[in-house]
Amino acid sequence: MTPERFEKLKAILTSRQMDLTVVMENVHKPHNLAAVARSCDAVGVFETHAISEMQDVVLRPRAASGSRKWVGVRRHGSVDEAYGHLRSKGFRILCAHFDEEAVDFRSVDFTQPTALVVGAELEGITDEAVEKADGSIIVPMLGMVQSLNVSVATALILYEAQRQRQEKGMYDERSMDDETYRTLLFEWGYP
Amino acid sequence: MTPERFEKLKAILTSRQMDLTVVMENVHKPHNLAAVARSCDAVGVFETHAISEMQDVVLRPRAASGSRKWVGVRRHGSVDEAYGHLRSKGFRILCAHFDEEAVDFRSVDFTQPTALVVGAELEGITDEAVEKADGSIIVPMLGMVQSLNVSVATALILYEAQRQRQEKGMYDERSMDDETYRTLLFEWGYP
Ligand SMILES: C[S@@+](CC[C@H](N)C(=O)[O-])C[C@H]1O[C@@H](n2cnc3c(N)ncnc32)[C@H](O)[C@@H]1O
Ligand SMILES: C[S@@+](CC[C@H](N)C(=O)[O-])C[C@H]1O[C@@H](n2cnc3c(N)ncnc32)[C@H](O)[C@@H]1O
Repeated sequence: MTPERFEKLKAILTSRQMDLTVVMENVHKPHNLAAVARSCDAVGVFETHAISEMQDVVLRPRAASGSRKWVGVRRHGSVDEAYGHLRSKGFRILCAHFDEEAVDFRSVDFTQPTALVVGAELEGITDEAVEKADGSIIVPMLGMVQSLNVSVATALILYEAQRQRQEKGMYDERSMDDETYRTLLFEWGYP
Repeated sequence: MTPERFEKLKAILTSRQMDLTVVMENVHKPHNLAAVARSCDAVGVFETHAISEMQDVVLRPRAASGSRKWVGVRRHGSVDEAYGHLRSKGFRILCAHFDEEAVDFRSVDFTQPTALVVGAELEGITDEAVEKADGSIIVPMLGMVQSLNVSVATALILYEAQRQRQEKGMYDERSMDDETYRTLLFEWGYP
């Protein structure tokens, strides 16, 4: 490994945001999974979460640009399991979802620990996942179409978080613990 | 047609931004085309452009959420043809493309007439299209992956344009000419 590459890996691991994540509820289309993974990597998400009742679902997007390697996916069998895990880690849980109390994504404070739940193309997020979350967010739409592609909506919200976090200097100080940092530096550096 | 629907159509046509568009160069995957069309509709793009040397390419995305109907696609056989058309309408042409002089998308003034060129998954934008354009824009990426999905990058830039244009009140006054307005109101209202 060249010294330049080693410095690059250290910088990227340092900028990973341990308190920002995405939860995909029954999102199964490989091109959507791959697009979400790339956006997550780009804004410094450390790992994502998937809620799926299907046991053998292929959560491994077919590695468009190899993003699969850089952002892990943690699988949960139910909403309770996923939310329990996230709350134990201090996450506030917000659904990207149209409902009466949904807040414009640009007025949410994403410098707080945030898990963003997104839903499937046809069904959207389940009632259970909406009800058990802490709130809903929408991306405003000014046209005839009712919803954005899921990977598009996810990216728009993540990049708003990135903007706010950058402004606050949150990419400059490492939030990853020493052990994870050293392990990943080794794994990424010597594949 | 109910009075509510008539009012909705009028409001949407009024908010259409005649001087904001997207040019897809050799973007052919239906799921990407569909995702771009939905985002265009959502930020008020009136029509998009496609540059493609393939004669029979299916530019009609398989109408996810029926967006195809609300945002037209104008096909051009070459870069010169597309850029000539756009420049005759007063557009500045900017490529979403990584190059040394590329500017961060958040520091571009999108209240100016803007045509945003985006490229294909593997090849990106051709050298010809980059060289003949007025400049390049990037969405910053803080991870290991080299590029975002094309529909994601397009949406991030369009929503930055939407934010700036909304702030300036550009959605409140109709920029569409009377004839197009009346024609579309009729076509959309009585399909
Ligand atoms: C195609 S949409 C699902 C539409 C579904 N018919 C519904 O009514 O919920 C897929 C997912 O993308 C996200 N999404 C799409 N457009 C959105 C928007 N404008 N604001 C917030 N989330 C959005 C939501 O998480 C949604 O569950
Ligand atoms: C998957 S990318 C193409 C990558 C291609 N290998 C290249 O080097 O150009 C598809 C298109 O999405 C757009 N794009 C993707 N990520 C971008 C970013 N971070 N900034 C600007 N445009 C981007 C560009 O228009 C690009 O041509």
